[in-house]
Amino acid sequence: MRTREEQDALGTVTVPADRYWGAQTQRALDNFPIGDQRMPLPLIRALGLVKYCAARSNGELRALPADIADAVAHAAREVMAGRWDAHFPLPIWQTGSGTQSNMNANEVIANRASELLGGDLGSRHPVHPNDHVNRSQSSNDTFPTAMHIAAAREAQERLLPALARLEARLVEQAGAWQGINKIGRTHLQDATPLTLGQEFSAFAAQAAQGRRRIETALVDVYGLAQGGTAVGTGLNCPAGFAGRFAALVAEETGLPFHPASNTFEALATHDALVQLSGTLNTLAVSLGKLANDVRLLASGPRCGIGELRLPANEPGSSIMPGKVNPTQAEALGMVCVQVIGNHSAVTTAGLQGQLQLNTFKPVIIYNVLSAIGLLADAMDSFNERCLAGMTPERTRIARHLEQSLMLVTALAPAIGYDQAATIAKRAHEEGTTLREAALADGAVDGETFDRLVDVDAMTRPTDPTED
Amino acid sequence: MRTREEQDALGTVTVPADRYWGAQTQRALDNFPIGDQRMPLPLIRALGLVKYCAARSNGELRALPADIADAVAHAAREVMAGRWDAHFPLPIWQTGSGTQSNMNANEVIANRASELLGGDLGSRHPVHPNDHVNRSQSSNDTFPTAMHIAAAREAQERLLPALARLEARLVEQAGAWQGINKIGRTHLQDATPLTLGQEFSAFAAQAAQGRRRIETALVDVYGLAQGGTAVGTGLNCPAGFAGRFAALVAEETGLPFHPASNTFEALATHDALVQLSGTLNTLAVSLGKLANDVRLLASGPRCGIGELRLPANEPGSSIMPGKVNPTQAEALGMVCVQVIGNHSAVTTAGLQGQLQLNTFKPVIIYNVLSAIGLLADAMDSFNERCLAGMTPERTRIARHLEQSLMLVTALAPAIGYDQAATIAKRAHEEGTTLREAALADGAVDGETFDRLVDVDAMTRPTDPTED
Amino acid sequence: MRTREEQDALGTVTVPADRYWGAQTQRALDNFPIGDQRMPLPLIRALGLVKYCAARSNGELRALPADIADAVAHAAREVMAGRWDAHFPLPIWQTGSGTQSNMNANEVIANRASELLGGDLGSRHPVHPNDHVNRSQSSNDTFPTAMHIAAAREAQERLLPALARLEARLVEQAGAWQGINKIGRTHLQDATPLTLGQEFSAFAAQAAQGRRRIETALVDVYGLAQGGTAVGTGLNCPAGFAGRFAALVAEETGLPFHPASNTFEALATHDALVQLSGTLNTLAVSLGKLANDVRLLASGPRCGIGELRLPANEPGSSIMPGKVNPTQAEALGMVCVQVIGNHSAVTTAGLQGQLQLNTFKPVIIYNVLSAIGLLADAMDSFNERCLAGMTPERTRIARHLEQSLMLVTALAPAIGYDQAATIAKRAHEEGTTLREAALADGAVDGETFDRLVDVDAMTRPTDPTED
Amino acid sequence: MRTREEQDALGTVTVPADRYWGAQTQRALDNFPIGDQRMPLPLIRALGLVKYCAARSNGELRALPADIADAVAHAAREVMAGRWDAHFPLPIWQTGSGTQSNMNANEVIANRASELLGGDLGSRHPVHPNDHVNRSQSSNDTFPTAMHIAAAREAQERLLPALARLEARLVEQAGAWQGINKIGRTHLQDATPLTLGQEFSAFAAQAAQGRRRIETALVDVYGLAQGGTAVGTGLNCPAGFAGRFAALVAEETGLPFHPASNTFEALATHDALVQLSGTLNTLAVSLGKLANDVRLLASGPRCGIGELRLPANEPGSSIMPGKVNPTQAEALGMVCVQVIGNHSAVTTAGLQGQLQLNTFKPVIIYNVLSAIGLLADAMDSFNERCLAGMTPERTRIARHLEQSLMLVTALAPAIGYDQAATIAKRAHEEGTTLREAALADGAVDGETFDRLVDVDAMTRPTDPTED
Repeated sequence: MRTREEQDALGTVTVPADRYWGAQTQRALDNFPIGDQRMPLPLIRALGLVKYCAARSNGELRALPADIADAVAHAAREVMAGRWDAHFPLPIWQTGSGTQSNMNANEVIANRASELLGGDLGSRHPVHPNDHVNRSQSSNDTFPTAMHIAAAREAQERLLPALARLEARLVEQAGAWQGINKIGRTHLQDATPLTLGQEFSAFAAQAAQGRRRIETALVDVYGLAQGGTAVGTGLNCPAGFAGRFAALVAEETGLPFHPASNTFEALATHDALVQLSGTLNTLAVSLGKLANDVRLLASGPRCGIGELRLPANEPGSSIMPGKVNPTQAEALGMVCVQVIGNHSAVTTAGLQGQLQLNTFKPVIIYNVLSAIGLLADAMDSFNERCLAGMTPERTRIARHLEQSLMLVTALAPAIGYDQAATIAKRAHEEGTTLREAALADGAVDGETFDRLVDVDAMTRPTDPTED
Repeated sequence: MRTREEQDALGTVTVPADRYWGAQTQRALDNFPIGDQRMPLPLIRALGLVKYCAARSNGELRALPADIADAVAHAAREVMAGRWDAHFPLPIWQTGSGTQSNMNANEVIANRASELLGGDLGSRHPVHPNDHVNRSQSSNDTFPTAMHIAAAREAQERLLPALARLEARLVEQAGAWQGINKIGRTHLQDATPLTLGQEFSAFAAQAAQGRRRIETALVDVYGLAQGGTAVGTGLNCPAGFAGRFAALVAEETGLPFHPASNTFEALATHDALVQLSGTLNTLAVSLGKLANDVRLLASGPRCGIGELRLPANEPGSSIMPGKVNPTQAEALGMVCVQVIGNHSAVTTAGLQGQLQLNTFKPVIIYNVLSAIGLLADAMDSFNERCLAGMTPERTRIARHLEQSLMLVTALAPAIGYDQAATIAKRAHEEGTTLREAALADGAVDGETFDRLVDVDAMTRPTDPTED
Repeated sequence: MRTREEQDALGTVTVPADRYWGAQTQRALDNFPIGDQRMPLPLIRALGLVKYCAARSNGELRALPADIADAVAHAAREVMAGRWDAHFPLPIWQTGSGTQSNMNANEVIANRASELLGGDLGSRHPVHPNDHVNRSQSSNDTFPTAMHIAAAREAQERLLPALARLEARLVEQAGAWQGINKIGRTHLQDATPLTLGQEFSAFAAQAAQGRRRIETALVDVYGLAQGGTAVGTGLNCPAGFAGRFAALVAEETGLPFHPASNTFEALATHDALVQLSGTLNTLAVSLGKLANDVRLLASGPRCGIGELRLPANEPGSSIMPGKVNPTQAEALGMVCVQVIGNHSAVTTAGLQGQLQLNTFKPVIIYNVLSAIGLLADAMDSFNERCLAGMTPERTRIARHLEQSLMLVTALAPAIGYDQAATIAKRAHEEGTTLREAALADGAVDGETFDRLVDVDAMTRPTDPTED
Repeated sequence: MRTREEQDALGTVTVPADRYWGAQTQRALDNFPIGDQRMPLPLIRALGLVKYCAARSNGELRALPADIADAVAHAAREVMAGRWDAHFPLPIWQTGSGTQSNMNANEVIANRASELLGGDLGSRHPVHPNDHVNRSQSSNDTFPTAMHIAAAREAQERLLPALARLEARLVEQAGAWQGINKIGRTHLQDATPLTLGQEFSAFAAQAAQGRRRIETALVDVYGLAQGGTAVGTGLNCPAGFAGRFAALVAEETGLPFHPASNTFEALATHDALVQLSGTLNTLAVSLGKLANDVRLLASGPRCGIGELRLPANEPGSSIMPGKVNPTQAEALGMVCVQVIGNHSAVTTAGLQGQLQLNTFKPVIIYNVLSAIGLLADAMDSFNERCLAGMTPERTRIARHLEQSLMLVTALAPAIGYDQAATIAKRAHEEGTTLREAALADGAVDGETFDRLVDVDAMTRPTDPTED
């Protein structure tokens, strides 16, 4: 393997000749042989965006010569576009400030910008990774800025659209199935009826609220640490930099990024991402119920509830021929479990900031981005491969409704809770229908029973004019 | 012990004569000898409010005779006021729908209302717990309604005021200590300077954001399940009840309660409380950092950082005479840890709703109310007994600032990162001051050093007009 | 209220005259008005035991005069017996070392011992809380010692017996129901058969393993910090004290307590309790499945699985007459959720030890003891009020078995997976029995079908001699 | 791209010609475009081992013809050796039973074995994925068996050795630094002295206990589900298979694998892995303290504790020249946080088994294997790159010891706690040494002070013969 020499403040390091990274990246690659989770690409691209907007801001504020600023900006746009993805080899498990990944960006961009200006790789001339690419910045503001940009973009571009698609599907099913009366179940026990559409309207409502909660949680994520430099004071950063920088990020992304209202807080804590993670946790809880309910309603086909038929996407069993399993619901359920675990990691990491810096940054963004991506993918897959092909088993739904004893509830306002309970118990013990038990009990005659036990009417509040 | 007979749909039960509860409460008392955590009083009082507003709504909508409605309302107000607290003996660990606590309220109020109307305890006449007190209701809508009312009131009346007081204190300290320059610390390593006021402004910002996040999370909590009855359809509930009921709750509490937009969702899930819990979790993370940082900054007095002096509220050690410990910070820290645990319980419980009902309601509200109360108490105690008496150790703060090597950062824009690093390392190795090392290095003269290494200027962005 | 004066190293404090606590307890009562969770009684009693064994050890090692040692031992035994429970008013949320509760014990015992020797309350003479009751001790070794004693005793005396009772019940049911063939369910989908006894044998196995895991986790809990004093070195503690002390504790409790192998570790960490908590977490997971499965198998009665009938302990619904709910399973399920939350709190607290001391001790023991007590109570209640009265619904079980299509699996070794799948799908689509579909398919004749599809044989491995 | 046709029970699927997987794998690849976490290689290799041992067992028990059994065994060994890693493309987020990964193994091995016997890829002849490779098996026993094998091997081969190396290092440092007296710290406040060796002995004890706990947790992991087939009964599996299979696995791995004592439990729950995960969680808590303490002790260099000097592996800051950060400790700390999150996911997944199957298997093993690998890597990296080069700052350690006031504790047995407290407070207020304050106080003379305040003696229990 051909190599070249790269330098940093500690000395000289040998680097593969075809890589654009420098000494500090190479040191980190050697020093952190931990796990196989690399810094996520959305974060790498966000670092590119940070360096681009910083270069332009530095240029405008005359903190960098125009040619240097332009070359850095050009190289940074290439990072944004993914051209240099393979030159960001570092793992999550590195310095807790993400310094090594910031330096990775500085080094790749410095080498590339130097090259554009006719310099040699490794020369740190004419573009120096610290003095030029990192100008007016510190890892301590750059990395959290990239974290916020990556999280907000992934949420906006992947999570919220998938959630909106899911919500639209559920709204559609809630409407389409409004006319299907069915038995309700509370405590997994037969209860009073509702429509299948009403049942699905609850899922739709969960999705809509989840969407709104995430949009709200993003508000704090739009605040950027950039401009705080090492400890939040903005040392070595020209006044005006933070505002100009954030405006450029907003322009590039179309999202309302702005300077953090308190830069000290923005370096030392990750409360905004803890809250976003908590909101993803709530969404995971919502989706977990959807996945579980679909599994319950599709249980069977003959020895369970069996009120929904799922599409048979694959053979379900390696040993049981003909089996169909709720595989998409299970995949979604596992994703929800993972997101709950990710949230626990983010919470624990968020708790451990000390003084001017939280040094658990990479593990926080890793878990947040992973949760966002998994939820987005799993919602789409569940939506397209399970919900889209799911159909009500109307015969079974109707049979359950006929058998249930809890229609007795409709009698209670007329004959009282206690006598109604006697009728229900009698039917249960004797294995009869509720109507038979009611007539045998003598509490109501057939006509009254039929008038009161009107399933359609039971799926909505009492119209007072009917009484 | 004198006793009387009480009845329910399953038969007759013996109850202590001086208790107003009935058969179902007594059964539950016998059936759930689990733990010592009783249903929290804020929830009991909220059940009183629910029964009061339901009685009035029923009266207005002619779902109850006026005299019955009035007697129920009267008795319910007594529950609201705490008069019957001792008659609510049930544990958290009961039915997952809270049915037994709802029946406890129905029974106490029915007995009391019957008594007011001249009836006998245990007669269920003229006021019946199910047919009258529970009229137009189910446990499945009543209990989650009480959960939301209790959580919102405790948050509004205890948590948010305590948080506002804490925020005010931190804002005041951030202002008062704006003139105290001190060394910053990142990775627990000496970094560039900031003011003590800036350091505390980060805590104030955390508090302000926490307050806003909680207010936002309450928005969904103001939606009430009442009117959904057993499964969300509103069976046996007159049209108009839900709206009238919520308006009365809003009137009584001064908070913007309203009917839930989807009653099916409001029974089957507790996403709104999971989200509130997640927001309390974020606040716990914020406060945990405050507690930890105070402990770090007050560490010593002689062999730690020692930049803050805490009030000596008590002897710190049973064996080490004269020791003062950061006891309020530790109490707050333990509360934060507990809230994180509570959130884990709420998340797990929230995940387990099935079909038309989440049957983990009591454990959810127990953890949410416990978290709210603990955070409120601990913030106030920490505020009054630690922050209020805390003072900066100015001598020590100044000495640290003088010693630090990281002031070298101010030289970097002028002499470059690499040469600045050489100076810092030299000072570190030789045990000299930074100024001595810089002059020995020859990179700058004394005058330049003094102009560039200006601690005041280092605590803010560079004024571009200065260059 | 009558009062008296008490003193400590910070000065004089007014105390209610009828309380035996002293100045530091009173200060703590005033300083920590946080929450309503008091230090658990098992811990208070364990502190009594610690003080008793310390007094005797001090007496034997001549670190205390015999009369003082005897008086302290006498008073401490009264604490052990619960006589002074009402004199331990302090909350969990205090110093993270438990110093105030240790001083509470020192003060109550000093006052009581002084009284026994003719001295006055508040005089600290002839028995001084620090110099005598706390002799050879620090809160830093005493409190964790009491934590270990309380946790081990509660586990031994409450948890393990309840778990053994549960296991015995499950073993009995596994045996009694060995002859009941039923359909299995995987993915909630109909699968191949097993016996109801086999189904319950899995729960019995979980209980047995849970019991063994807890016994194993207790091994480290038997190691006691006592003798380490302030930081683990044993300063101010006579050589030999730790060994004598632990022997006395072992004698009093009948449990194999011994000095911790490393006293520094025993003060600075609570890994042993984190591991015990993790083991309780595993038990909660096990019991959670039991509770959930009982709810699933008892779902219905007419529109669910309905293979188990639960005892009707109470009316299930305030609105739906005649409803029976799986209330004991829900209470157990909520306890499991709480234990999982407690474990999260213990983990977070365990992570935060610093240098020579973990100062999250009270929150750790509170959560561990709470988890132990809740699990013990809930297992007993579920056992006695749910399992004991639970019966199989044999008719329904048999009908499910007849209907299932997954008996087709028994054909696969003979006719191949692919053709077996064709038969199962055909039966599913055409709504016929498996036998009808198999014969229509022509793959087997009736005799072969009946020989291969032998439900009894399907509940065990193939006897090779049969082929 | 060249393709071929593959079939399964649902029909025909097009597959890349150069891949050995079949129809079901391809369906899964299309059906689960979720996330980028592939099934971990240790699990794939373990599936190879399962298929190898199953083929041999089937051959011996005449459940497969010898030539088929041999070909399957041969192909399976190639999977074990990693030859076909690239042919296992499926994600974690699939069926919760891992059926698709089991079928992936069946299909790759069937194709390869058919090829070895002269058949064509895709022909399912002469070797059929279900009828031959999966013979006597179900995904429901195969996948959990592979989970246990993979977890146990990774723990044995990676985790325990790394932990043993860490323990050895800590034992060595505890010994080497036994002579360095230093100040202790409790509550982060100056306390009584200990040696640096004693301080590190606590870490060594944590490591030793962690090792023992993991070995204990593995005991249940050695129990294998194999032989239970679809629901635990062993349907379609010859008697004797489970025992023979486990013996072969034990032989191949050198680990004491054996058939699970209850196969129903082994399919339906993952308690053994939840417990292992809980034990990894305890280890994460232990290592988290080590990482945090190293960061605290190395804080500074001038404005913190500064008692340890860490190796400067890389420049610490992109903006602050000369800064050295505790990067290895941070990487380790982040790994600990992740493991705690993984444990939360495993717990939640473990709770959700239903009836005969836990269908959260892939997410469980993903989190367990990820935790094991991360802990192993991070311990080694921290060990080699931080502990190995870490040195005590003896001058600073000595100065701290001299300054501390808590040496006063050694006076307390002689002059009483209260007077000792007065001396400490006086020194603190007046800024003097303890000796000066003690002499000024008059409580002791200089000679007595020097005799009692003997730091060496303070690091061990009192020798009773000295008094």
